[in-house]
Amino acid sequence: MAALLWTPELRHSLERWLQEDLGRGDLSAPAVGDVQGDALWLAKESGCFCGGPLAAELFHLLNPAVQVQVLVADGDAVAPGTELLRLHGPAAALLAGERVALNLAMCLSGVATATARLVAQLAGSGIHLVDTRKTTPGLRLLEKYAVRCGGGLNHRMGLDDAVMLKENHLAWCGGLAPALQRVRRQAPWPVSVIVEAETAAEAKAAVEAGAEGVLLDEFAPEAVEGLAPKLRHRARQRGKNVVLEVSGVRPEQLGAYGSCDVDLISTSAPVTHSPWLDLTMRFCRE
Amino acid sequence: MAALLWTPELRHSLERWLQEDLGRGDLSAPAVGDVQGDALWLAKESGCFCGGPLAAELFHLLNPAVQVQVLVADGDAVAPGTELLRLHGPAAALLAGERVALNLAMCLSGVATATARLVAQLAGSGIHLVDTRKTTPGLRLLEKYAVRCGGGLNHRMGLDDAVMLKENHLAWCGGLAPALQRVRRQAPWPVSVIVEAETAAEAKAAVEAGAEGVLLDEFAPEAVEGLAPKLRHRARQRGKNVVLEVSGVRPEQLGAYGSCDVDLISTSAPVTHSPWLDLTMRFCRE
Amino acid sequence: MAALLWTPELRHSLERWLQEDLGRGDLSAPAVGDVQGDALWLAKESGCFCGGPLAAELFHLLNPAVQVQVLVADGDAVAPGTELLRLHGPAAALLAGERVALNLAMCLSGVATATARLVAQLAGSGIHLVDTRKTTPGLRLLEKYAVRCGGGLNHRMGLDDAVMLKENHLAWCGGLAPALQRVRRQAPWPVSVIVEAETAAEAKAAVEAGAEGVLLDEFAPEAVEGLAPKLRHRARQRGKNVVLEVSGVRPEQLGAYGSCDVDLISTSAPVTHSPWLDLTMRFCRE
Amino acid sequence: MAALLWTPELRHSLERWLQEDLGRGDLSAPAVGDVQGDALWLAKESGCFCGGPLAAELFHLLNPAVQVQVLVADGDAVAPGTELLRLHGPAAALLAGERVALNLAMCLSGVATATARLVAQLAGSGIHLVDTRKTTPGLRLLEKYAVRCGGGLNHRMGLDDAVMLKENHLAWCGGLAPALQRVRRQAPWPVSVIVEAETAAEAKAAVEAGAEGVLLDEFAPEAVEGLAPKLRHRARQRGKNVVLEVSGVRPEQLGAYGSCDVDLISTSAPVTHSPWLDLTMRFCRE
Amino acid sequence: MAALLWTPELRHSLERWLQEDLGRGDLSAPAVGDVQGDALWLAKESGCFCGGPLAAELFHLLNPAVQVQVLVADGDAVAPGTELLRLHGPAAALLAGERVALNLAMCLSGVATATARLVAQLAGSGIHLVDTRKTTPGLRLLEKYAVRCGGGLNHRMGLDDAVMLKENHLAWCGGLAPALQRVRRQAPWPVSVIVEAETAAEAKAAVEAGAEGVLLDEFAPEAVEGLAPKLRHRARQRGKNVVLEVSGVRPEQLGAYGSCDVDLISTSAPVTHSPWLDLTMRFCRE
Amino acid sequence: MAALLWTPELRHSLERWLQEDLGRGDLSAPAVGDVQGDALWLAKESGCFCGGPLAAELFHLLNPAVQVQVLVADGDAVAPGTELLRLHGPAAALLAGERVALNLAMCLSGVATATARLVAQLAGSGIHLVDTRKTTPGLRLLEKYAVRCGGGLNHRMGLDDAVMLKENHLAWCGGLAPALQRVRRQAPWPVSVIVEAETAAEAKAAVEAGAEGVLLDEFAPEAVEGLAPKLRHRARQRGKNVVLEVSGVRPEQLGAYGSCDVDLISTSAPVTHSPWLDLTMRFCRE
Repeated sequence: MAALLWTPELRHSLERWLQEDLGRGDLSAPAVGDVQGDALWLAKESGCFCGGPLAAELFHLLNPAVQVQVLVADGDAVAPGTELLRLHGPAAALLAGERVALNLAMCLSGVATATARLVAQLAGSGIHLVDTRKTTPGLRLLEKYAVRCGGGLNHRMGLDDAVMLKENHLAWCGGLAPALQRVRRQAPWPVSVIVEAETAAEAKAAVEAGAEGVLLDEFAPEAVEGLAPKLRHRARQRGKNVVLEVSGVRPEQLGAYGSCDVDLISTSAPVTHSPWLDLTMRFCRE
Repeated sequence: MAALLWTPELRHSLERWLQEDLGRGDLSAPAVGDVQGDALWLAKESGCFCGGPLAAELFHLLNPAVQVQVLVADGDAVAPGTELLRLHGPAAALLAGERVALNLAMCLSGVATATARLVAQLAGSGIHLVDTRKTTPGLRLLEKYAVRCGGGLNHRMGLDDAVMLKENHLAWCGGLAPALQRVRRQAPWPVSVIVEAETAAEAKAAVEAGAEGVLLDEFAPEAVEGLAPKLRHRARQRGKNVVLEVSGVRPEQLGAYGSCDVDLISTSAPVTHSPWLDLTMRFCRE
Repeated sequence: MAALLWTPELRHSLERWLQEDLGRGDLSAPAVGDVQGDALWLAKESGCFCGGPLAAELFHLLNPAVQVQVLVADGDAVAPGTELLRLHGPAAALLAGERVALNLAMCLSGVATATARLVAQLAGSGIHLVDTRKTTPGLRLLEKYAVRCGGGLNHRMGLDDAVMLKENHLAWCGGLAPALQRVRRQAPWPVSVIVEAETAAEAKAAVEAGAEGVLLDEFAPEAVEGLAPKLRHRARQRGKNVVLEVSGVRPEQLGAYGSCDVDLISTSAPVTHSPWLDLTMRFCRE
Repeated sequence: MAALLWTPELRHSLERWLQEDLGRGDLSAPAVGDVQGDALWLAKESGCFCGGPLAAELFHLLNPAVQVQVLVADGDAVAPGTELLRLHGPAAALLAGERVALNLAMCLSGVATATARLVAQLAGSGIHLVDTRKTTPGLRLLEKYAVRCGGGLNHRMGLDDAVMLKENHLAWCGGLAPALQRVRRQAPWPVSVIVEAETAAEAKAAVEAGAEGVLLDEFAPEAVEGLAPKLRHRARQRGKNVVLEVSGVRPEQLGAYGSCDVDLISTSAPVTHSPWLDLTMRFCRE
Repeated sequence: MAALLWTPELRHSLERWLQEDLGRGDLSAPAVGDVQGDALWLAKESGCFCGGPLAAELFHLLNPAVQVQVLVADGDAVAPGTELLRLHGPAAALLAGERVALNLAMCLSGVATATARLVAQLAGSGIHLVDTRKTTPGLRLLEKYAVRCGGGLNHRMGLDDAVMLKENHLAWCGGLAPALQRVRRQAPWPVSVIVEAETAAEAKAAVEAGAEGVLLDEFAPEAVEGLAPKLRHRARQRGKNVVLEVSGVRPEQLGAYGSCDVDLISTSAPVTHSPWLDLTMRFCRE
Repeated sequence: MAALLWTPELRHSLERWLQEDLGRGDLSAPAVGDVQGDALWLAKESGCFCGGPLAAELFHLLNPAVQVQVLVADGDAVAPGTELLRLHGPAAALLAGERVALNLAMCLSGVATATARLVAQLAGSGIHLVDTRKTTPGLRLLEKYAVRCGGGLNHRMGLDDAVMLKENHLAWCGGLAPALQRVRRQAPWPVSVIVEAETAAEAKAAVEAGAEGVLLDEFAPEAVEGLAPKLRHRARQRGKNVVLEVSGVRPEQLGAYGSCDVDLISTSAPVTHSPWLDLTMRFCRE
C-alpha cells in the first residue's frame, strides 16, 4: 500500500479546495436544514482507486461531525459498483463536501488507473515506471502519490530534491564539468545529479562526470539496448552505480523497452493523458 | 476574446504553484549562474491556446527581470510550430519557471481545445455549451476561464453564486416548495435557483415553483424535444423566463440535441476527459 | 431563523480578530492565573440580537476548554436584562476573548436591530428591504447575515455573484446593448444582470435589453408608482420577469413607497447609520 | 497631521478587503474593456476626512497602473463639494476598487468626524479624549488612527501593550497587590499598568499599589473634582506620576468634566455611535 | 513560573517550523509503519529548562494521537539525566517531530540557562536583568519568554509597545523636545518613552523632557553611581518616577554595577552569545 | 561564492520577521518625520560575513525607496571596520529595518564564521564539513546557506530530500532490509538513503543493504581509519559508491580525523555553539 505523507501544508490545500467551492457559503444548505444523512461512494467503472483518506480528511475539515469509513485502500482495484466509502453526518455537510471530495478522488484515481495500466506493460521486466514534473499545478504531491498507488515510482518532487541538468543548462553553463562542480558545491550532498542525454556521447560524458543518473531522451529500444551495458560498465569501473532512465517513450511502446537493461522509464501520460475515473456518491435519508 | 479576471487570490495561487516546484530553491540554478537568455514557446500540436497572460504573470512573480511578450491571444487557434510567447531574462529564472508555466498552459489549453471541439458540434443550433463544478481542485477559476476561451459559457462557479437543488436536496427537505422558500429567504436575491429534474413531472414542478433554470438530467433528445416547449409555455404563462439545460450527454451525442429548444448543454468532459495540449519552450543563449 | 453559512475563511477571520486584540499575548492573564470562571452575557437595551454562534466559535478558537451555551437565537428580540450566553471555563480565556466577542456581537446586533426597524415600516407591503455593498471592510458576510437576522434580504455579496451596470459602466462602454452582450459572454449563465436607471427612459431600455433587475435610483414614490407597472408589463410581453428595486430612499421615507409595485428597496443605513447594540458580559467567580 | 504607520500586515488587510468584494473577479469588468478613465472623490457633507493614503494604496494594490493624487490630508476639515482624491487609470480598475476604497474612507472619516466634535467640547480644558478597545473587528489600527486624525489620543492598542486590571481580574486574583506583582513579573518593563476603580477607595488603593494609570469608571464630575487632587498628591508623595482617566461619560456630558484635574476621558462613541461620512466618486471618460 | 502567552500566531509559528522540516513529508516514515512507541526526553547537561509546553503543543499539532506529559516546568533547573517529557504515540509521529521540538527546546533552554547565570550575578542587588531587541528573527516572543524563565525581565517586545529614542532619532529630529512632542501625539498614552543617553548631560535632558526611562549606554560603574541619584532626584522634583537602565555591559562585569542605584541592566548575551542546552530524546519500543 | 536560492516563501519569511518587530507600527517613526538619511554597515570584529543580499531585500520589502549597495559578498572575510553595506532612503525606514536586518546578518555571519574556522581545521584533508538538521526553527534554509558561505557543504535540508535511518527506525521496523525496501518503494528514486551506524557491524550491514551513505556515529579516529577502507571496498564490489560520514565529533577534535578516508564530518556546532558576529549600522544625516 502506498504511503500518504501528511503535512500541515497538505491539510491547508484541502481546506483551500473546500473554500474554492464554498465561496461565501453553500446557498443550498438552508434547503436541507439540520437533517442527518448517510451516503455511500461507489465506483462506476473499473480502475485503481485513490483518494479515500484524503476524502475522509476533507469531510473532517469541513465538519468534524461527519463520520467517514474508508472501505477500499488506496491502490486497490475496483469495479463498477464497488463500495468505496461510507459516510454519516449532517446532510448539509455531506452535500457541501461531495463535489470537492469526488473531484479529488476521481482525478487521482484516474492517474492511479492509468499508471497501473502502464506498469502492467512492464511486468516482469524489472524496469520501474516513474513520473515527471509535468503535474497539475497544486497537485504535485497528490498526483505523485497516485502514481505510487498505481504501482509506479516517483521521480524527483521538485527543483530542490534532485538536480537534473538538461540541454539548456549545459548550453548555458560552459560544459558539463564546470556545471557539475558548481552544483555539487551548492547542493546538499545526498542530492543526486541526473544528466539528460540526447546522444550516446552525451550519455557517456555524463557517466564520466560522475552523474548519479543518466536520462536517455527519445532513444529507440535498440539504441538503448546497445548503450546501457556500456554505461553501466564504465560506471562500475569508476566505482559508482548509475541509474539509467529512458524518457520520451510513447505509452503504447513501453513494452518494446522491456528487455533493455535500464532502471526506469519516465512518462507524464498518467497525468497529462488520462481521464478521471468515474465515481459517485449516493445519498439516503437516515 | 475571453476575459481573465485578476484577483489578489489568483496571484497567490500562481505564487503557490511556483513554490510547489521550487521547494527550498532550484538546485540547478548554480549551473547557469548569471547568464541572460532568450526563449520561445511553441505549439507542438493543433488546438486552442490558453494561458499566455498567466504564464507572463508567473514569470513576473518569479523574477520581475524576466520580460515576456505574448504572441497569441488566449482562445486563438494554434498549429504545430505556432510561436506563442517570447521571453528574455536571467537564464536561471527562465529555467526555474519553465515547468510550472508550461504545466499550467498545457493543462488549460487542453481544456480550451476540447471545449472548442464540442462547441463546434453545436454550431448553428443556438445552444450554448456550459461547464460544471467537476473541476480540478484549485483550478476551478482557470479551467472555467479555459472553457470560455474555447467558446463555452460558464455554469455557476461554486456553491455560492447560484443554487442548484438536486435529487438529494429534495429528498431531504420535504418537497420542492418549502425548500425553495427556505433558500430564497437566505440567498441574495439576484442568485438564480436551478432545479435538477429526472422526470418530466419533476421538470414541470420546477417551473411551477418558479425556478430560474431547469436541468434535464439524462433525457433523450426526443424526450427533450417534446418537453421543452411545454416548459417554456408554462413559464411564460407565469410571466417568467426559464433557462433549460440538458446534462448527462455523452460528447459524441451532442449533435443529436441540436434541434432541441434548450439553452444549454452542460458537460464536464473538457476537464475530466481531455489530454493536455503539447507545448514546448525552446531556449537560446543570448 | 437566518442561516449562518460557515466556511474555513470565516473561521480564519475570527482567528485574525482574536489575534488583533491579543497581539503578543494578554499581559493581564498572569493576574488571574489558572482560576476557572463563569460569565453571562446580557442585553443592556432593546433590539434584535445577532452573534451568538459567532461568539461561541470565537471562544472555542481561543481555548477549546471554554464552554458556551447560546440562550437566544440570532434574530430574536431582546430587552434590557435578557440573558444571551452563558460561559464557563478558564477565567483567563473568558477575559481574553470578552472584548472581541462583544465587539462583534454588538456591531452585528446594531445592524440587525436597525434592519428590523426599517423592515417594520414595510410590513404588509410585500416589498423586501435589501442591503448594499456599502459594508465595513472585512465584515461583508457577517453584516449581510445580520441584515437577514433583522428580516431583510441580501443584495449581491460582491462583484462576482451578480452584475450591476451603473451610470459609469454605461458611459464607458458605448451603450447598454454591447455592454450586456460582453458581460453575458463572460459571466456564468445563472448570474443576474441588473441595470441602474436614473430616468424612466433608462429603466425602459434596461427592460428591453433583458436585464433581470432594474434599479430605480432616487425616484420619487409617485414616479415609481407610474413607472413600475409599465416596466412589468413590457417585461411580461418579452416573456420575462423583471425584479424592480428602488434605491436612494431616506430611511424615514420608506413607508411612502409601501404601495408601489416594486420588489425591493435597498438601503445601506443599517450598516452606515446605526449604533451598536449595547451588550455586556458579567463575570462571577466559580 | 496624524501619522499612519505602515506594516506588511496592514497591506495584507487592504488586499483581503479587495478580495472580499472581488470574490472570483469583477463580472462587470468586461462591460468597459480597456478604456482609460478619470475619477474624482468629493465630500458630500461636512466633517473630518480620513483615508486618503489608504485609498491610494488600495488602488495601487489592485492595479499599479492607477494613479492617485491625494488632495486633502487625513485629519483636515472638508465641506460638501471638497475635492479629496483625483484618480486616473484603467476604468475597470477604478470601478472595481471604488466601493472598497469608499467604504473604508467613509467609515474612518465618520470616526474622525465624531472624534473631532467630541474633542471640541474639551477645548481649553487640557484634557485629552482617548478611545477604547471597543473597535470593529479587523479595523482596530485604522479606527484608532482615525481617532488621532480627529484630534484624540489612543488608549492601548490591544491586550499586549498595556495592562488594565478590571473588576473581574481583581475579583479573580485575590487582591490588587498579588495581581500587580504577578503582572509586573511577566510584562515587559515599559508596559504601564492601569487599574479600573469603581469607588474612591479602589482608586486610592490603585495609587498606593503604584499603578501608572487609574481609570475612574462612571464617576460624576463632582466626585472626580474632589478625588483627583488627592490621588495626584498621594502619587507625588510616592515619587510617581499617575495618569487619571475618566470613563463611562455620555458624549453630551463631556463638557461637565472640563474643569476636573484629569488627563484623559475615554469614550467608544466615535466608533460605536457615529455614522459614516458621505463621500462619492465621480467618473468621467478620458 | 514564567507565563507563556498563547496566541493563534504562536501556533502558526509552531506549524511552520514543523513544515520547514517535513517539507513534502517524512520519507523515513514508511520504515516504521504504524508501530506505536514511547519516548523520553532527558537533559544531557545542567541548566535551566525551557520549552516543555511548546514541545507538547508541537507534537499535538503534528498528530493529536501523540500524548505528552511534561515532567519539568519551564524555568526549573535540570541536571544531566533529568527526565523532562514522556511521550507516547505513533512512532512515525514521534520521529517526525523529534528534531523540531528538540531544536526549539534546546535553543530556548540555552537562552534561559545563560540568563539564569547572569541573573545570579545580580542577586541581592535589586537590579533586574532585561533583554533587548537583538533576538533571532522569528523567535522574539519565545526567546523573551526564555529570558523570563531564566529570571530576567523583558524590555519592549517590538517597535510598537514602547518608544526608544536613540542617538540617530535625535540627530534627525531636531532635538529631544520636538521629537518627544511628536511621539506623544501619535503613540498610545500608556506607552513609555525611553531615551538613550551617551553622556550625563543627555541623561539629564531626558529626565527634564519627562522620559519614563533613561538608558545609560556604556557608562562605567562609577559614572553610574554618581549620576543615578541626581537623575532620580530631579525626576522626583518633577513629580515623576524614572526608570534607569544601563546597557553595553560585558557579561563578566555585571557584578560591578551591583551597588548602583539603577533599575535595570540590559544585555543581549543570552541570545547572541549562549550555546544551546544539550537535550536528547530516547525511544523505546512499546 | 555561495548561491542564495530565492523562493516566494523566503520573501514571506523576511516579511514576517519585519512584522515581528514592527507589530502595530514603529512608534518612534513620528520623531524623525520625512527626513532622508544615509547609513553604513560596519563589521566590529573579524569573521566571515553573511547576509548582505538578505538585508538588501529586507529593506526593499519594508520600503522600496530605500537603496542598498552591498559592498562585501557573502562568504568574504571581514575585519573590524570593514564597510559592508551602504544605505540611503527615508530615515524612518532605515531606523525601522535596522534591528531585524542586523539580527539576521549577525546571526548568519556567526554561523558562517564558526563554519569557516572548522573548515580550516580540515584543510588539505579532502574531507568536507557538513551541517545537520539541528538548526534554529524558521532559519533552516538560511543557516544552511551560511554554512555554505563558510565553506561547508549541506547535509539534507529536511525529512524529505534524503532518508536517514537511525537506531530508532531500525529498532521499530524489524530490521534494515525490510525498512529499506519499504522506504525505496515510497521515496522518489533520486533520494539517497543514509544509515546511521553505532558499530562496525551495523556499518557493514548498511553497505550490504545498498545504502548510499553510512554515518559513523561517535567513532574514534582510529576506528574510522580501520573501518572506512573496508566499507569502501565492499561497496565497490557491489558496484556502488558509498559516502562515508563521521558524526558526533567535538569541534576541537576535527583535526584528528584528517587522515581518515571519509567524505564528510557533520557537526551542528556552527549553529548551536557559535556567537553572533558583531556588526553595526552607523547613521548620518543627509
